[in-house]
Amino acid sequence: MAELRQPWKGLLQLRNTPANATLFCMKRDDIAAAARRIAGRVRQTPVLNLHPGLSLKLELLQASGSFKPRGAFNRMLAVPLPAAGVVAASGGNHGAAVAYAAQALGVPAHIFVPEITGAAKRERIAAYGARLVVGGAAYDDARLASEAFAAESGALPVHAYDQAEVLAGQGTLAMELAEQAPELTHVLVAVGGGGLIGGVAAWYGGSGVQVVAVEPEGCPTLHTALAAGCPVPAPVGGLAADSLGARQVGALMFPLMQAHGVASVLVPDAAIAAAQAWLWQECRLVAEPGGATALAALLSGAWVPPAGARVGVVVCGGNCAPGSVG
Amino acid sequence: MAELRQPWKGLLQLRNTPANATLFCMKRDDIAAAARRIAGRVRQTPVLNLHPGLSLKLELLQASGSFKPRGAFNRMLAVPLPAAGVVAASGGNHGAAVAYAAQALGVPAHIFVPEITGAAKRERIAAYGARLVVGGAAYDDARLASEAFAAESGALPVHAYDQAEVLAGQGTLAMELAEQAPELTHVLVAVGGGGLIGGVAAWYGGSGVQVVAVEPEGCPTLHTALAAGCPVPAPVGGLAADSLGARQVGALMFPLMQAHGVASVLVPDAAIAAAQAWLWQECRLVAEPGGATALAALLSGAWVPPAGARVGVVVCGGNCAPGSVG
Repeated sequence: MAELRQPWKGLLQLRNTPANATLFCMKRDDIAAAARRIAGRVRQTPVLNLHPGLSLKLELLQASGSFKPRGAFNRMLAVPLPAAGVVAASGGNHGAAVAYAAQALGVPAHIFVPEITGAAKRERIAAYGARLVVGGAAYDDARLASEAFAAESGALPVHAYDQAEVLAGQGTLAMELAEQAPELTHVLVAVGGGGLIGGVAAWYGGSGVQVVAVEPEGCPTLHTALAAGCPVPAPVGGLAADSLGARQVGALMFPLMQAHGVASVLVPDAAIAAAQAWLWQECRLVAEPGGATALAALLSGAWVPPAGARVGVVVCGGNCAPGSVG
Repeated sequence: MAELRQPWKGLLQLRNTPANATLFCMKRDDIAAAARRIAGRVRQTPVLNLHPGLSLKLELLQASGSFKPRGAFNRMLAVPLPAAGVVAASGGNHGAAVAYAAQALGVPAHIFVPEITGAAKRERIAAYGARLVVGGAAYDDARLASEAFAAESGALPVHAYDQAEVLAGQGTLAMELAEQAPELTHVLVAVGGGGLIGGVAAWYGGSGVQVVAVEPEGCPTLHTALAAGCPVPAPVGGLAADSLGARQVGALMFPLMQAHGVASVLVPDAAIAAAQAWLWQECRLVAEPGGATALAALLSGAWVPPAGARVGVVVCGGNCAPGSVG
């Protein structure tokens, strides 16, 4: 009975177990509402049809260079913004998106990144006028530092993946893609903390479209969580760690993976680098490692489409040095 | 009367004067026929809408990295292909496209490039299995070498811009864009030899859409021709010479410029480099100098859109070192 008088303990449990996670249910209506809220703030990114069986969703052409402004704007437009502004922890892409959105909405942004965040992402964050703080070795360290700052400053936290508004915002990508390419049977999405695939699975859930989660072998957060039956810490490393290197997937996304039967695939770093090179050679697209990870599953054969499949691949980010892909 | 017994002399005149040029009339039907002929061979490239007043036609994502396969395939599918294959002279992009099309159609390709053609373009041509010949200092030298080879070998010449099938093929870009972005009031297109803008003007002619030709100050072929009243040689130099460095515009395209009142604008190299940097910073797109030239007119203010204009800009090529744009 003593346990019941420690509500934080119960909340902690709820936050980390599937029992709680099933409490979270995102509907298409939530995503449609997000799409209305962020309309005009983000780009409708185009689709490149390579042949009848393969379409690329060019989300690397999104404002700030990744899909992240969808969730950032939805979060920041759904709640009142304090004078202290917003705070976010990020491997870089989410930070750039929050900085971009904050600049557009006229509030200060405080962005905490880990040491592994590369120059392209740091420069982007600074270029949008945000305050950049390097807070520890990995994403999770930056997250802790950002939470401490949020508590003392009153700035609004904009989570990189584990907030309902963020998930719904990222889901607008799938809503858009479903309209642009209604013929798709499979959609491949890279996973870090799982905000994007959570929203994508929520949109496609029940539609018959199979969502496939792709992760680097060096950052297998969803794969590890699915094996464990709940979000658990996983290793963080490899080529795409600066965009996919969350230590564990979000509590909100996890039940959506289970409910919609999302498939999980791992790819080695060599396959990611090869997919980057392929995107440049074949399409003149510069994707960062995390942005090429979903395609890597297809090109490497780590995931093999069934006969007749029409595959959509989300190319989700391009914040890297342009010369790093050739 | 002696003149009349020298038919080549008359032909030469016809080829170089507006009096002849008006004999060439391309209709939308020719372009629609080209679109049917090349369907499935080239990509329908997407449009990126940046805001209601500005859309980019992402033709740099075309197979082989520029718009050129549209014309190359239309030429090569419209006539019987000899066993000797095809021959083309090119600053690089047309050569890559002919090599790409030849590989797809299973015939040999002989590509003559000038010395200024950069590594990205040379590697691309070789990667498609073509024979690469460096034939002189500038495009016009390579053209002469290619014509000599065509005469001796029997290979089919595929001209970089001055053949009816090539113009009609490039015109499919405008046909596609008109369907993707019917709201446009102005379309900005870079000009080298004028194959692309010839086809674009032919499609948009009479539609009320103003076509704007943009050239580097270093390669002002159309600007010079419009001032002279007919195609005349112009200087070849500057940042975009390897894609826009034809010595003079084609005879076939010129009357289309006059008939459709195409506007002509020049931009300095600094504006082209700035447009390349802008495309990378704002859109994560890697355009070569010639591919960024049309946008340079808008960004630099060399061309100012009238109030209420909805501007389409063709970003027509991306065959450069990816690290050269940041």
